[in-house]
Amino acid sequence: MTRKLNIAVIGTGRIGSMHTANLVRRIPEANLVAICDIRLDVAQVVADDLGIQRVVQDYHELLADPTVEAVLIAASTNAHAMIIKDAARAGKHIFCEKPLALDLRDIDEALDAVKRSNVKLQVGFNRRFDKSFKRVRQITASGELGKPCILRITNRDPEVPALEFMRVSGGMFLDMSIHDLDMARFQIGEVEEIYAMGTVLIEPALKEFGDLDTTIITLKFVDGTIGVIDNSRQAVYGYDQQLEVFCLKGTAFANNEIEDTVVKGSRQGFQSALLPYFFMQRYAECYVDEVRQFIECVCEDKPTPVTGEDGRMAVVLGHAAWKSYHENRPVKISEIASPR
Amino acid sequence: MTRKLNIAVIGTGRIGSMHTANLVRRIPEANLVAICDIRLDVAQVVADDLGIQRVVQDYHELLADPTVEAVLIAASTNAHAMIIKDAARAGKHIFCEKPLALDLRDIDEALDAVKRSNVKLQVGFNRRFDKSFKRVRQITASGELGKPCILRITNRDPEVPALEFMRVSGGMFLDMSIHDLDMARFQIGEVEEIYAMGTVLIEPALKEFGDLDTTIITLKFVDGTIGVIDNSRQAVYGYDQQLEVFCLKGTAFANNEIEDTVVKGSRQGFQSALLPYFFMQRYAECYVDEVRQFIECVCEDKPTPVTGEDGRMAVVLGHAAWKSYHENRPVKISEIASPR
Amino acid sequence: MTRKLNIAVIGTGRIGSMHTANLVRRIPEANLVAICDIRLDVAQVVADDLGIQRVVQDYHELLADPTVEAVLIAASTNAHAMIIKDAARAGKHIFCEKPLALDLRDIDEALDAVKRSNVKLQVGFNRRFDKSFKRVRQITASGELGKPCILRITNRDPEVPALEFMRVSGGMFLDMSIHDLDMARFQIGEVEEIYAMGTVLIEPALKEFGDLDTTIITLKFVDGTIGVIDNSRQAVYGYDQQLEVFCLKGTAFANNEIEDTVVKGSRQGFQSALLPYFFMQRYAECYVDEVRQFIECVCEDKPTPVTGEDGRMAVVLGHAAWKSYHENRPVKISEIASPR
Amino acid sequence: MTRKLNIAVIGTGRIGSMHTANLVRRIPEANLVAICDIRLDVAQVVADDLGIQRVVQDYHELLADPTVEAVLIAASTNAHAMIIKDAARAGKHIFCEKPLALDLRDIDEALDAVKRSNVKLQVGFNRRFDKSFKRVRQITASGELGKPCILRITNRDPEVPALEFMRVSGGMFLDMSIHDLDMARFQIGEVEEIYAMGTVLIEPALKEFGDLDTTIITLKFVDGTIGVIDNSRQAVYGYDQQLEVFCLKGTAFANNEIEDTVVKGSRQGFQSALLPYFFMQRYAECYVDEVRQFIECVCEDKPTPVTGEDGRMAVVLGHAAWKSYHENRPVKISEIASPR
Repeated sequence: MTRKLNIAVIGTGRIGSMHTANLVRRIPEANLVAICDIRLDVAQVVADDLGIQRVVQDYHELLADPTVEAVLIAASTNAHAMIIKDAARAGKHIFCEKPLALDLRDIDEALDAVKRSNVKLQVGFNRRFDKSFKRVRQITASGELGKPCILRITNRDPEVPALEFMRVSGGMFLDMSIHDLDMARFQIGEVEEIYAMGTVLIEPALKEFGDLDTTIITLKFVDGTIGVIDNSRQAVYGYDQQLEVFCLKGTAFANNEIEDTVVKGSRQGFQSALLPYFFMQRYAECYVDEVRQFIECVCEDKPTPVTGEDGRMAVVLGHAAWKSYHENRPVKISEIASPR
Repeated sequence: MTRKLNIAVIGTGRIGSMHTANLVRRIPEANLVAICDIRLDVAQVVADDLGIQRVVQDYHELLADPTVEAVLIAASTNAHAMIIKDAARAGKHIFCEKPLALDLRDIDEALDAVKRSNVKLQVGFNRRFDKSFKRVRQITASGELGKPCILRITNRDPEVPALEFMRVSGGMFLDMSIHDLDMARFQIGEVEEIYAMGTVLIEPALKEFGDLDTTIITLKFVDGTIGVIDNSRQAVYGYDQQLEVFCLKGTAFANNEIEDTVVKGSRQGFQSALLPYFFMQRYAECYVDEVRQFIECVCEDKPTPVTGEDGRMAVVLGHAAWKSYHENRPVKISEIASPR
Repeated sequence: MTRKLNIAVIGTGRIGSMHTANLVRRIPEANLVAICDIRLDVAQVVADDLGIQRVVQDYHELLADPTVEAVLIAASTNAHAMIIKDAARAGKHIFCEKPLALDLRDIDEALDAVKRSNVKLQVGFNRRFDKSFKRVRQITASGELGKPCILRITNRDPEVPALEFMRVSGGMFLDMSIHDLDMARFQIGEVEEIYAMGTVLIEPALKEFGDLDTTIITLKFVDGTIGVIDNSRQAVYGYDQQLEVFCLKGTAFANNEIEDTVVKGSRQGFQSALLPYFFMQRYAECYVDEVRQFIECVCEDKPTPVTGEDGRMAVVLGHAAWKSYHENRPVKISEIASPR
Repeated sequence: MTRKLNIAVIGTGRIGSMHTANLVRRIPEANLVAICDIRLDVAQVVADDLGIQRVVQDYHELLADPTVEAVLIAASTNAHAMIIKDAARAGKHIFCEKPLALDLRDIDEALDAVKRSNVKLQVGFNRRFDKSFKRVRQITASGELGKPCILRITNRDPEVPALEFMRVSGGMFLDMSIHDLDMARFQIGEVEEIYAMGTVLIEPALKEFGDLDTTIITLKFVDGTIGVIDNSRQAVYGYDQQLEVFCLKGTAFANNEIEDTVVKGSRQGFQSALLPYFFMQRYAECYVDEVRQFIECVCEDKPTPVTGEDGRMAVVLGHAAWKSYHENRPVKISEIASPR
């Protein structure tokens, strides 16, 4: 039997508390040592609920503890890079939620620290672990459908998040589309040029701080594939998550999952269920799988499946999308940054 | 180019007028010589609508006409056997709507006449010409799925027909289930035993003359396959037509067609269209194809795809179902009649 | 926060070990006190895997322990009734896997003991907890579709179980169809008459001990609804689980779940995934939910959602199906037993 | 009963001969007076096949014939504008295949002639008559889903047309995307700006004359909606025709039609049929309906459902797409032309 990894969670908000529950209940390979949140009361509620013994307020305390082997960072985005740097210097392996940071210099400094300390880093792009998206990748990677021609992603949230969150989120392209930009790299490879358009049709208050709620991004990939991502902050029928890779010899697409399989027939036609409400429902298994794989990579000293460079390039693409939108022109990725 | 077949239609009610329109507009291989109905005014309306020159009241006039090569019989059921006999004696090839007759002796006399005159006879089991049901047959006949184990047919009308029609129709098993009993023979082969159950849940007036509106028939086939047919006179969402042949190495099923492919997503879930309303819509192409094939068989002197024996055995199975229902026990087909 | 229920598991084979893992990992309302198996080594493996401290060989030891409040019985079927009686006398609440027993007298004695001791009893008909089957029930129970007319259930295993198991299982109708007979009661209500037909098309060795692998059961319900269940021991495309309740004003059907949502289009058409392999995958969440609800019913002193009478009537219906098959005639349920 | 319209067909190639067959067999409101093709032998084959008496080589002969009330123009694209002008001057009503012309000045001259002569003109954008696309329009126009946010169209041919045709077709955006650009106007309204990207991944020979085979067009509409069209010249699984209008309160999408409804389940999963092969199959009914509506508009003196301006604007949008592609920047429609 394999050993258990001693891990601590930093940040116990919505995502952090879910990761914590997974570590306690669903990931037997993990030994959750402690949880940490600057809002100690928030962390304490999570600890009480899950029967966790150790709760700390200052993450440096965890980094100083030699029994802690790895940290899962789910603090607010603006603290990610700093904690990564500190954790790397303390020799802890790191699983960090997306995005690594909004500022590319912060990301580069963090990745430098990781490199110097030679610790593992995995970024929380959960969708790479979805069985259907993985299956699409597997089909196209097998070559049976020939060269990919068109990538098509639909990603629509069920409702607009809280405005206070939106204000600091990096906006549509860096908060929401970033998942699709990473998925685009996962499915096809590096992007050469981006053109982004967007508008505010759902939540007028977004205009105050220049954010968008309805966007389309087109992509030219280095390998010649072209692609399109459409995003919306409000799909009233549930969390709309579709993906297609259309190829020379066929196509592979991942349809939406659905809440149940019941169809009701009546004089009004046939009615079926809503989509799963949001990411916590739709990608529940992915959140478990990504952390299990992270632990396996640490324990067996293998490269992580979502690297720091993956985390960085998704942010680069997000910035390219914003630049394209603001200047209303296609933007080369090289205008933002080169691959490290 | 192949020659055209001179054909006349006898009976211009709902089905007959549809066949007539098909012969005029959609079947270039046919030369419609005349139409006939004892209700001359009914036939005249059809003739006016389609620009048909010759309308007669007495079908014997058509049988006496040497230019008429074939007749399509769509008169009322109780006249079918008599017209077949007369037409056969007159040397005309015959396409006859289902059922051949309700009385087996009438059928046998008619089939004897056909045999003696050596004319072609095809019975109007239109569903054998449906592309999806044919495709299921083709798949299972290829042997790729191994031996058929379970046949499952769902056949539900959209609404209860007029009571005056129901009274003389032969009832649920001989009017409605007869299509499924024929389809069972088409898909699997001869039936050995039938058990039928039924009830009146939709139209209480049916009880007056012993008819049913909701039935289930189970079948044991000679080759060991078992099967089930469920029927209803009222599916408010449209004409429900499903078929499955479940086999040792897989299954082949024909789903319902749908009026259009639009899906509407809203807070109530996803809504799609009704099924096609009824047989005139759902099997529109089958009515064309069956007559085209009949004409081809006559012109090229080939056996017809739905024989007199097929028409007879479907009626035998219908009677077996009624006997089973009345005696509430499984009934051997040999209790009703043997194959000719 | 609610208290935890002290529960022990008796029988740690395939189903028992799954329940044990659920109790440890997924049901925080449970405090798993111990596990028990007469094959001590089998239980020990489960205990080691899940970090369980107490393992016993003789279940009487658990019944004598005053800290044990409830037992989950997943021992072999022939031991169910005896353990229920013993547990009831010891004042333990009982969750028992299906079937309660194959012999109706054993069941009646067990239910008598439960009644006298006034403990809770829940039977493990897991499918009642499936979200889609529950949703169908909810739709029809709301009355919006009017009176149910036809119940249609398809239940097909992916492959034939081991013959040594089949030999003692009670056979097709008591081992496999029993789930559907219970579902029939759950969806519609009490059954009045059954007709069952069956054959051996998949595994010839079943003939040695009179079992079947391909069956169709038709049902007449007390309320006038009619129904049909088709069963097979081998659906090579996965565990086929469909249900329809067709009503006067519409229909509600539960389609199969599917392993992933990917569709691959190519020159061969469109290909989608297999069904979930078997019940452990398909009904994984039901196994959790049924036990959570059992615990809630014990802790809050409410009636259990699947009662002893439910467990008994499913066995009665199974025996009626066997009698019908052997005598090839419809059998009244009252020929087997009356409701208690 | 309404009178029949005397109509002649000019151009009897693939599309023209299909229109001719429809006029003869499926459109009783039409009286086909004559057909015309500069390739007299081609027209004669069509005439022989359909039993048409009058065949002419020079369309002026038809325009000089006072019994001809209307012409259906299906000649080669480069002749459309000239024939329209001539027909308008001769006082004939005009149904013209798409595109009106490739040159905007030619179109404007033709439309001027139509206006002066006060004849009816309808352009052959057949997809506007598709029941599913019409249904989407009807749903969104009803307002029940709120304001449209994102239009998404997928249009993919089954295989690359002949290169000699491609050379003179106007290229991807004016030959193929033009249908989608018209559909965009039909579903949402006027377009303000276009960005088009494209590549050659299927047929390298297209590079010789600067054509594309794989393209994505993004659209900003005057009303604020944004949209995307993806096109490919080769979808090996059939003619891929999807449309979605995603709105504030839900979505309406038109799925692909499928050749038959059979699904085959096996160890490889579930397999369903190909899509209809191409436009002649997929839009067969639309070709009938558009001409029936044209005839009705002429006979009842109503505006045609697809106007000259519709034909013109689709070409304007196609030119905007080409300009955007060549200059790799978003292009305002006003850079090409203003609405008339």
